[in-house]
Amino acid sequence: MPDAPSDPTCIFCKIGTGQIPCHKLYEDETVLAFLDIGPLSHGHCLIIPKGHYVTIDQMPPEAVTACTRLLPGLSRAVVAATGCKGWNILQNNGKIAGQAVDHLHFHIIPRTAGDNLGYRWPAGKLDPAQAKVLVEEITRAL
Amino acid sequence: MPDAPSDPTCIFCKIGTGQIPCHKLYEDETVLAFLDIGPLSHGHCLIIPKGHYVTIDQMPPEAVTACTRLLPGLSRAVVAATGCKGWNILQNNGKIAGQAVDHLHFHIIPRTAGDNLGYRWPAGKLDPAQAKVLVEEITRAL
Repeated sequence: MPDAPSDPTCIFCKIGTGQIPCHKLYEDETVLAFLDIGPLSHGHCLIIPKGHYVTIDQMPPEAVTACTRLLPGLSRAVVAATGCKGWNILQNNGKIAGQAVDHLHFHIIPRTAGDNLGYRWPAGKLDPAQAKVLVEEITRAL
Repeated sequence: MPDAPSDPTCIFCKIGTGQIPCHKLYEDETVLAFLDIGPLSHGHCLIIPKGHYVTIDQMPPEAVTACTRLLPGLSRAVVAATGCKGWNILQNNGKIAGQAVDHLHFHIIPRTAGDNLGYRWPAGKLDPAQAKVLVEEITRAL
């Protein structure tokens, strides 16, 4: 990505430039995929842009898609290598959302029966009147 | 997406063709974004491809990126509308991973303090010898 931002103090920027080693799975000019060193499950890996973006709202769409176009192939490879029966793609924005490194990253988290992982899912019910207001508010901001 | 697959029994395919209504946020030829009717939080919404794909490993990369290029702008709009301080992007593959509708979808889940949402995070520690084997297995399958 030409003119991609960088932060010399960021650990993922340092991994992106090779200053800090990683268990590399894939690399091209703009993105890097490697094993998470604090895995939630066998095969847990990350895709990062080499450019320094903290959260996804700050990214040019093409920097996002440079990462996400890897998801089908890397998912197939992780499934082939681990034999997992399912997997989560997760990308956390902000400390409150569980983001631990302030350089955007997509997790691929393989899942197996009884692994006690997963997202907490206390689903509510959408109120139609509130939904109408929310649609207006979100589409106005789009 | 030319020649995108479809499943006439799938609820998200029906939403994609307009047979079933939704609280629509965005639509173009290939993708649709709408409010989740069982929201985890205020502003919880979904992005789906109009083509019927069950899991991300089955998708052409361009069908994935048609969805994910919306993530920056839709994230900004959701933040603007809800005032959330963080948000998760989540995409579940397989029942074991929490996938409830067998048509691929990306969740945008706004987060606020004390919401009791989030991913369970019992991080392990990557063993270097196992990592070496895993890198070989995954890259061989890429």
